[in-house]
Amino acid sequence: MPSAECLPHDYPLMQRALERAREAAAMGEVPVAAIVYETATGNVLAEASNRRECDADPIAHAEILAIRQAARALGDWRLNDCTLIVTLEPCIMCAGAIVNARLGRVVYGAADPKAGATESLYRILEDERLNHRVTPITGVLAEESAALLREFFRGRRGARGAGRGD
Amino acid sequence: MPSAECLPHDYPLMQRALERAREAAAMGEVPVAAIVYETATGNVLAEASNRRECDADPIAHAEILAIRQAARALGDWRLNDCTLIVTLEPCIMCAGAIVNARLGRVVYGAADPKAGATESLYRILEDERLNHRVTPITGVLAEESAALLREFFRGRRGARGAGRGD
Repeated sequence: MPSAECLPHDYPLMQRALERAREAAAMGEVPVAAIVYETATGNVLAEASNRRECDADPIAHAEILAIRQAARALGDWRLNDCTLIVTLEPCIMCAGAIVNARLGRVVYGAADPKAGATESLYRILEDERLNHRVTPITGVLAEESAALLREFFRGRRGARGAGRGD
Repeated sequence: MPSAECLPHDYPLMQRALERAREAAAMGEVPVAAIVYETATGNVLAEASNRRECDADPIAHAEILAIRQAARALGDWRLNDCTLIVTLEPCIMCAGAIVNARLGRVVYGAADPKAGATESLYRILEDERLNHRVTPITGVLAEESAALLREFFRGRRGARGAGRGD
């Protein structure tokens, strides 16, 4: 169950992100994907999946790639009028990027107990000392996302559980 | 005074980073710059300054750009054998990127009381729950870095103090 009320585009776009995440798994990437859309219209500005292994890039998490693409599409580093959809709870780097980009809304699927920085290890997005805050909507298609991660890690090296902090 | 003993390349490369930061200020960017070098040899793999405004990219902090360049140069997302030099205390996003990239050493100049995530608001790099830890060396040419930031913000909109969290 989601933690708060969703907008009409959130579920279908989370479904689309899960499809992207499945494609990432097929390429040997931890299956996480993200979409940025304009909140008012549902217009998709960016979609990306994790590319750390393919690009040998430690920064190439899905959220980072989607945020960059969206900023490029808008010609502005401020994404206040946008929603970020992501299949897994963001890590510290990505939570910081969400704050830096002033994202208006954040919706995600499964929690990440090992590395998640928005409810699990930290609550970065709600830190009142920072100059931007956004309360994330959590648990949207969470079981689908967690199952995808479990299946990926089980296939790769035995059941080590979901999470990206490997 | 630095918080711990420096290696021979740390000071000259911090000087070089400060020059890069000065060039960034001339382009209207908050003056922060970073260098990644191979710890054993001093070989510089990457250097970058903040490009958020020029690129309209919320991710384009100096550390992120330098980490990506260094990973590309090595063909590996793991930077355990590298040192990151940065003129200002990293923000949450950049501290998370340092952990994700497994950086072996981190050396920085001024603290950032408003947005710093390695000693000011958080101590991300020393969090034992994460799968990589690195104790940063702080205070290296800190006054030069802080003076550069003060001068930049004073010139731009009156004295609002140092920091990147604007």
